[in-house]
Amino acid sequence: MIKIAIDAMGGDFAPEEIVKGIEIARDRYPELAFELYGTEEAVRPLIQNFDRLTLVPTTEVIEMGEEPVKAMKNKTDSSMVRAAQAVKNGEADAFFSAGNTGAILSSAIFIVGRIKGVDRPALASALPSFGGPNDSFVFMDLGANAENKPSHLYQYGILGSFYAGSVMGIKQPRVRLLNNGGEEDKGDDTHKAAHQLMKQTASFNFLGNVEAREILEGTADVVVADGFSGNATLKAIEGTAMTMLDQLKSAIKGSGIRGMLGALLLKPALKSLKHELDFNDQGGAVVLGVKAPVIKTHGSAKASAVANSMGQIQTMVKEDLVGKTTTFIKENADALKAKKIEK
Amino acid sequence: MIKIAIDAMGGDFAPEEIVKGIEIARDRYPELAFELYGTEEAVRPLIQNFDRLTLVPTTEVIEMGEEPVKAMKNKTDSSMVRAAQAVKNGEADAFFSAGNTGAILSSAIFIVGRIKGVDRPALASALPSFGGPNDSFVFMDLGANAENKPSHLYQYGILGSFYAGSVMGIKQPRVRLLNNGGEEDKGDDTHKAAHQLMKQTASFNFLGNVEAREILEGTADVVVADGFSGNATLKAIEGTAMTMLDQLKSAIKGSGIRGMLGALLLKPALKSLKHELDFNDQGGAVVLGVKAPVIKTHGSAKASAVANSMGQIQTMVKEDLVGKTTTFIKENADALKAKKIEK
Repeated sequence: MIKIAIDAMGGDFAPEEIVKGIEIARDRYPELAFELYGTEEAVRPLIQNFDRLTLVPTTEVIEMGEEPVKAMKNKTDSSMVRAAQAVKNGEADAFFSAGNTGAILSSAIFIVGRIKGVDRPALASALPSFGGPNDSFVFMDLGANAENKPSHLYQYGILGSFYAGSVMGIKQPRVRLLNNGGEEDKGDDTHKAAHQLMKQTASFNFLGNVEAREILEGTADVVVADGFSGNATLKAIEGTAMTMLDQLKSAIKGSGIRGMLGALLLKPALKSLKHELDFNDQGGAVVLGVKAPVIKTHGSAKASAVANSMGQIQTMVKEDLVGKTTTFIKENADALKAKKIEK
Repeated sequence: MIKIAIDAMGGDFAPEEIVKGIEIARDRYPELAFELYGTEEAVRPLIQNFDRLTLVPTTEVIEMGEEPVKAMKNKTDSSMVRAAQAVKNGEADAFFSAGNTGAILSSAIFIVGRIKGVDRPALASALPSFGGPNDSFVFMDLGANAENKPSHLYQYGILGSFYAGSVMGIKQPRVRLLNNGGEEDKGDDTHKAAHQLMKQTASFNFLGNVEAREILEGTADVVVADGFSGNATLKAIEGTAMTMLDQLKSAIKGSGIRGMLGALLLKPALKSLKHELDFNDQGGAVVLGVKAPVIKTHGSAKASAVANSMGQIQTMVKEDLVGKTTTFIKENADALKAKKIEK
């Protein structure tokens, strides 16, 4: 049985949608068991039955706007900190939250703990590929680290490559570096140096730079970015997709009865498009480089996103992603150290 | 008469689409005159009549893939370098090219020359606003500078604010800083410091950070970004918009006769959406901070984009954007120097 520690209080629709999502996941994945951390009065009334599900009462909640590190340190009886601690203590195999992103990252790094040899755990998410051999690709770092050295970007390549290989089942994942041009001399000093480290590596299959314009086109299975521009790129993709759907809707509304009729006929096509683009529903973002699977969903996640994340965790645990990554980094410790000779 | 020096050989569809665009602009803007720099045999046959239009024969062409600075230095008789030089020598008021972006930037900075007091000229473009009081906003730097100091970002605020005010007619333009969170302590050290410089300024109307998810929503008239993540964000927006239109098309095709009929009924709505998103057609990107208007379009620009850029140049010259910016920077030289006390 795989045991997952759930922060039942984190997220805009917590605890209702979290509990609902867990109950869907319980039906769907018979090998999973769930430990829900949350306020007794808020969570207990929502639970239909306690099959493979435990409620661990906690007294505090980390809110969305709180300063992450401070919140983690001060609210020791919060649902998030307690869930992370359950993983650290070996009582659970993985940790899930839809709460304050910064606090999740802090809990992952400081409570669950970094894998030895990993300098900077990173936030990764699967995005859809429209074109290319695979349905989706791994995009990271999405903002765990605002400042990045070339060796950090290089390590993201290793972590992302293992995730794409183990969890998404992609053989020899094609790794690319997000940069502002295809040639190897493009970008600032950090990206130029990172390109050189990646170019010479035997640790993953590096195919060069990719520009943000092409990342959805399927030419990479892992796109490595520094946390600052990775975050901006992800948000630009999300914002543009949302804006376009909104504009399409209002263009339809503005075109009268003819447009309405057209939209009605196109409904199935538009629905499948919306589904493909709604990648937040397809799973959560993963903190890679820590000692156990840690998954966060968008704060606005509904039950189906929560349930899908549980499937993702199941694969991560079954494929022993953390174990494989740890062994690889241990065996290649010398090579990794050599990559750090830099300013 | 406003005289514009045109690089007739730059761009994927040069010289044909460039000449076509200029002839459209000649009909549309009676106060403009054009000096076309290009290869005699290639360009002369394309010109219908020479009213307000001169052909200046050149012998070299800077290709799209060439190393920018080297190309600019070596190809002294190229259409691009000669057009830029015409501006430097006072023979023309503005410079236009659809060619190699790096070479245009180099020509703008090293031949046309920086405005005294501007450390880093920047590349700016108007993007559509879906929401808010104005139709579009200025986004910069889009990649002129891969490395940026806080004082550079601060100067972009001044340059962008003048452009939005003079050329787009926006009063008290609302300036925001692209960052990975709304709070002032978000981002890396560069963005934190830039935020502080902007917060204290009287030189423009600073309203705080904006995230890439919201930049199309009309909460800013000028969005300042470092050149690296500005470039990535712009390309992510373009790539996502293109991908969505492609996906919409194939979703329609895949849904049979019903979908086709729906699409037919929706055609006007879809067309207006496509037009709104095709911001590359609405004008070119501007190099701000140099001694004359310099405009570049996408390499793939067609005649209509070229013609629209001429209108943009006319406004820049008539509103004396460069003169106003120069005077402001001169008058505020001391305050600007004080902003540079930084690492």
